[in-house]
Amino acid sequence: MSTRSKTSARSLPRTSARPKPLPLPGEARVRVAVVGLGYWGPNLVRNLHELAAAELAYVCDGRPAALASISRRYPAVRQTASYDDVVADPDVDAVVIATPVSSHFELAARALAAGKHVLVEKPLAGSSREAVELMELAESRQLVLMPGHTFLYSPPVELIRGLIAAGELGEIYFISTSRVNLGLHQSDVSVVWDLGPHDFSILQYWLGETPRHVTAMSRSCVIPGIPDVTFINLEFPSHAIAHVELSWLAPSKLRRTTIVGTQKMVVYDDTSNEPVRVFDSGVDLPNPETFGEYRLTYRTGDIVSPQISAAEPLYLELADFCNSIQTGAAPRSSAEIGLEVVRLIEAVDASLASDGGRVALAARTGGAG
Amino acid sequence: MSTRSKTSARSLPRTSARPKPLPLPGEARVRVAVVGLGYWGPNLVRNLHELAAAELAYVCDGRPAALASISRRYPAVRQTASYDDVVADPDVDAVVIATPVSSHFELAARALAAGKHVLVEKPLAGSSREAVELMELAESRQLVLMPGHTFLYSPPVELIRGLIAAGELGEIYFISTSRVNLGLHQSDVSVVWDLGPHDFSILQYWLGETPRHVTAMSRSCVIPGIPDVTFINLEFPSHAIAHVELSWLAPSKLRRTTIVGTQKMVVYDDTSNEPVRVFDSGVDLPNPETFGEYRLTYRTGDIVSPQISAAEPLYLELADFCNSIQTGAAPRSSAEIGLEVVRLIEAVDASLASDGGRVALAARTGGAG
Amino acid sequence: MSTRSKTSARSLPRTSARPKPLPLPGEARVRVAVVGLGYWGPNLVRNLHELAAAELAYVCDGRPAALASISRRYPAVRQTASYDDVVADPDVDAVVIATPVSSHFELAARALAAGKHVLVEKPLAGSSREAVELMELAESRQLVLMPGHTFLYSPPVELIRGLIAAGELGEIYFISTSRVNLGLHQSDVSVVWDLGPHDFSILQYWLGETPRHVTAMSRSCVIPGIPDVTFINLEFPSHAIAHVELSWLAPSKLRRTTIVGTQKMVVYDDTSNEPVRVFDSGVDLPNPETFGEYRLTYRTGDIVSPQISAAEPLYLELADFCNSIQTGAAPRSSAEIGLEVVRLIEAVDASLASDGGRVALAARTGGAG
Amino acid sequence: MSTRSKTSARSLPRTSARPKPLPLPGEARVRVAVVGLGYWGPNLVRNLHELAAAELAYVCDGRPAALASISRRYPAVRQTASYDDVVADPDVDAVVIATPVSSHFELAARALAAGKHVLVEKPLAGSSREAVELMELAESRQLVLMPGHTFLYSPPVELIRGLIAAGELGEIYFISTSRVNLGLHQSDVSVVWDLGPHDFSILQYWLGETPRHVTAMSRSCVIPGIPDVTFINLEFPSHAIAHVELSWLAPSKLRRTTIVGTQKMVVYDDTSNEPVRVFDSGVDLPNPETFGEYRLTYRTGDIVSPQISAAEPLYLELADFCNSIQTGAAPRSSAEIGLEVVRLIEAVDASLASDGGRVALAARTGGAG
Repeated sequence: MSTRSKTSARSLPRTSARPKPLPLPGEARVRVAVVGLGYWGPNLVRNLHELAAAELAYVCDGRPAALASISRRYPAVRQTASYDDVVADPDVDAVVIATPVSSHFELAARALAAGKHVLVEKPLAGSSREAVELMELAESRQLVLMPGHTFLYSPPVELIRGLIAAGELGEIYFISTSRVNLGLHQSDVSVVWDLGPHDFSILQYWLGETPRHVTAMSRSCVIPGIPDVTFINLEFPSHAIAHVELSWLAPSKLRRTTIVGTQKMVVYDDTSNEPVRVFDSGVDLPNPETFGEYRLTYRTGDIVSPQISAAEPLYLELADFCNSIQTGAAPRSSAEIGLEVVRLIEAVDASLASDGGRVALAARTGGAG
Repeated sequence: MSTRSKTSARSLPRTSARPKPLPLPGEARVRVAVVGLGYWGPNLVRNLHELAAAELAYVCDGRPAALASISRRYPAVRQTASYDDVVADPDVDAVVIATPVSSHFELAARALAAGKHVLVEKPLAGSSREAVELMELAESRQLVLMPGHTFLYSPPVELIRGLIAAGELGEIYFISTSRVNLGLHQSDVSVVWDLGPHDFSILQYWLGETPRHVTAMSRSCVIPGIPDVTFINLEFPSHAIAHVELSWLAPSKLRRTTIVGTQKMVVYDDTSNEPVRVFDSGVDLPNPETFGEYRLTYRTGDIVSPQISAAEPLYLELADFCNSIQTGAAPRSSAEIGLEVVRLIEAVDASLASDGGRVALAARTGGAG
Repeated sequence: MSTRSKTSARSLPRTSARPKPLPLPGEARVRVAVVGLGYWGPNLVRNLHELAAAELAYVCDGRPAALASISRRYPAVRQTASYDDVVADPDVDAVVIATPVSSHFELAARALAAGKHVLVEKPLAGSSREAVELMELAESRQLVLMPGHTFLYSPPVELIRGLIAAGELGEIYFISTSRVNLGLHQSDVSVVWDLGPHDFSILQYWLGETPRHVTAMSRSCVIPGIPDVTFINLEFPSHAIAHVELSWLAPSKLRRTTIVGTQKMVVYDDTSNEPVRVFDSGVDLPNPETFGEYRLTYRTGDIVSPQISAAEPLYLELADFCNSIQTGAAPRSSAEIGLEVVRLIEAVDASLASDGGRVALAARTGGAG
Repeated sequence: MSTRSKTSARSLPRTSARPKPLPLPGEARVRVAVVGLGYWGPNLVRNLHELAAAELAYVCDGRPAALASISRRYPAVRQTASYDDVVADPDVDAVVIATPVSSHFELAARALAAGKHVLVEKPLAGSSREAVELMELAESRQLVLMPGHTFLYSPPVELIRGLIAAGELGEIYFISTSRVNLGLHQSDVSVVWDLGPHDFSILQYWLGETPRHVTAMSRSCVIPGIPDVTFINLEFPSHAIAHVELSWLAPSKLRRTTIVGTQKMVVYDDTSNEPVRVFDSGVDLPNPETFGEYRLTYRTGDIVSPQISAAEPLYLELADFCNSIQTGAAPRSSAEIGLEVVRLIEAVDASLASDGGRVALAARTGGAG
């Protein structure tokens, strides 16, 4: 009655061997090329420009207008419309790929083959097969391969992870999340491929586990064949369950997640002035053997909005990339997490393809990432 | 791969034959007995007391303390701990049943057999088989049988129905709804049986159709075997999809529904001062053949919070009950709607029982209700 | 340039002599008559009915319809249209007066003269002169005289007082408050007399001091001669300042108060699910001698919404009235506070009468209350 | 009992003579120098850089670090630490002054004397006397002199002005506004000089009239002698009244204004996703002769959040400046409005200096601006 996701039979990269530190002199900056100057590219350029550990060496895009726009603000940065130039240049240490997902594999593979470290915008690749191949290529050459799951560097997300890890919320019962807005419809990927990586990476980061089962339902409202609203139900090995609602059609922008634990509950609202609110609420069942609503005690205590630092997540992500390159340490947004995210997206697609049938994901055969 | 809900083989009552008006003189009031004085009972008593068309004839409950509490406030109302008294009394025209669902069938059947009209608190019965039986019994005796789906009388719900019926929202793309709070866990029914009837009746009322497919996922967090959080995905014959989140575990009380149509969108927040907000937002696709995000136009216009009347829904529901009894008109919260709600709950349970498998519901063989 | 409020020359009751406990046997309930069954009367009746320490002995109102309405719900309570009956009846221990303010003095004086304890709805009287007279009468007969400043029993107000008293907010810099709604215009009193008592009593309770100076500005928008919007500026002996905005014309109901202290800040929103929010925010000035914005440090810490009890303030107020009667303890909503409230209202009126001129209030010559 | 503001005796510039258009060829851009690169300077530079009608000719600041920071981003713009260079350069058509207010007069006067048009950041000058002198100087040389009251170009402010002008709100009863935040304390000006210009210019723009009377109360909480919280009450010739609360001490950033008219009410919240909300609410008094709350009808209708354009106000302000220079048309943020704003600030200071005494402003002797 369920469909197995294809990745299960594939071997996964071992996480134990880490890339050797790049042989850079102590204070040397990582020379980075940014490939793809669409929606996200300019943000990457801006942050790399400000990052002390990086030197913005190249911007690359096939469209002259995009290159012209960047050069007006950063006249000193070398530019090219040809990826060949970037890959061939020995002065480029690392490549940041911000192109449509269908090109991720090819561009990343070529960069890795040329001995460059790679940061590729989410999702890591268009299939788990490609993701695994990239990981193997990176590992064999001891290069950093990092997917750009920026939310892992968001201070609210980080704070919540700390709360969960410290046991402050107790065991996680369930998580319910909505990531919706009016637009932007993509012509090449569905809302699952576009928005799913955010919530899937965050869940992975918080719970440290990959869902065991998935069921999903979607509709392609505006563009035939491209789902723009999806309801995803997830079941985890720990028995936690989660619901993820993704949509390009909504009255207003909403990015809200509710986490319910045995001890406390959290509401994470990314668009709010108080992005994290911790509720000291729960249910106590004194005598688990004789239950009934007379035995339950509902506890509603204080609500705290902890002060959150205002760091820009993308800046922290790029700093982590550079640090991984310079020290060999694994980045927080690891390739392993990136692979789990792609496997989950594929499982969602498999469920949609089987009319909402339940899809199982095999446990990861590699490390926990 | 999917499971058929059991009701499909059952014959359903015909809706064409309506109960004949009760032979009451022009101004006579309906003499009503309220059975069950737990959570909802006192509200029923209060509203019946104020309703000119009704005469509160009896209150019935097996617990002396409950009877005593009511009698302090309504000393003139006759009371009894014995349902036999109520059923046997020829001066009782109608019975309102507000007991736990497991007793609905027996109490309702006995009342109908005794020639009394019946309003039974949601859900209509504990199974579609029982519901059908009650409907057949009511029809054969030309009595009113009405499930207490109070939200159908809520002014915001009514207003939204008008908007949909008038085509103001356009075709409905999807609906997403959350009905969550901290408590109250029931020991005899799951959160699906407790809270599901509200949203299932509302969806039925707005869309005029029963879902064709259901998948659901739940967890019994606090009391083993009793789901207290459930994520339900629904697919309708019109291709609209819906997600319903129900939970007895939440940081705060939330009752919010988002409706996205081709023309406009609506947010219905039952706990807000402005329960209905209409967004003149949408996506326009000028040339459906050549798509891509360059062709789409996103429209965000005015947002309107229409003025809503402050009538108490339960009062309107009881007035409709009395009106049905006196005139023979079908109540808005009809038995047909009640049956569809029970069928849908059963389909959800079937999905949960098959680990989230997709369950199909047969179309109703009777009228649309 | 400023006008002195008339009360300064009057002697004020000494607070040291408290009424002797009423000679009731240990468990005896206070027999209470409620006079005036308009807007607030039924709430008083309901709460007295539930209060174990009280016995609802009489309801009195000149309008037969009002009496009939109450008797339907409380058939056992004696009723009369004549205040004479109430005052003359030796079985009446205490009188609760909920009539228009213009009748407060006469009704209260008569009740005190007849040896009955008195709880009079805010404000205590229509002038400080009358208030003082009532206080002297009550003191001479050792009776409880209590103004009904219900907000003093509101759990959020109580909690904030505790925070201030404990020094948690630090020294109070200023308080800004809005109490506005659409309606209800009164034909006999201005919005200052109608809504002012709430905020004036709360400020008195929190700060323990009476403003030293007042300036006010108003407009009589709807009914000539009756101000329905007023902006009041207050200056306290401690140097704290406050702004109070009162209005019967507003887009929505708002009851919000911001308190800014040297250590922390509080927002009290009476219409919110989280009525009290404590902000760990402030400004630190390390070197008070060399200032400039480079020296200031702005601190924004956690925000906490403490859990608040859900007790009904009016119930607590009536319980306090009964307790005062039975034990001789001073009620929280004391006559002294009631007098300060009336003096402040008079000072506001004096400022309005002098086109917004600054009005001074003399310090209270009696105890602090 | 009130103090007259000093400006009344001064003659004011006539508004009838407008500066002749600058003799520029049709497509010529206005060559602009920005003086002062502190808080607001970089925003001016950015917008001028994007404005087609302007050419960013010079940036001037005495601090090398500020110049260096700008030059990194705009390497082509000429820079100098000397204002003399700017004033002496015949290629500079206009000067934008964004320095502390104490330098406004000197810098503006020198620029005007040198034949340059001037846009000076709010407030126009540090005294009405200086403001008038600048206006006379500008008029005599037929140059544009414009204060930077940016909020006049805010789309929400503009929309509200349209509503008022169209009579949709009816007659304005009163306006209540709060502009508060935590910081930033200035060492050279009070919160009245810092934040007052925003609300004072907006009120002037909406109502088209200058207050007739002012009373104010303040406290210097953090820095001795520099008020950081002020409550200002204003009375207008039309009988509208207004309250303006300004503060550098607040739990959160708030910029909210409520406008109550006879027909409708508006809430303008500058920090909200829905900055303007129009409430179809009001009070109707059918028979103005026999009043009392029984005659009043309270009307609460729909609430509409109109769609607002997302234009950047500062961009529009600079475009208006250039347009005034090129065509001779008066800018929306005129010197006349700038003068009224300064007069009002002076009146507030006068009230504070007289312990909250009521201060009168003479009507403007010039045109309405």
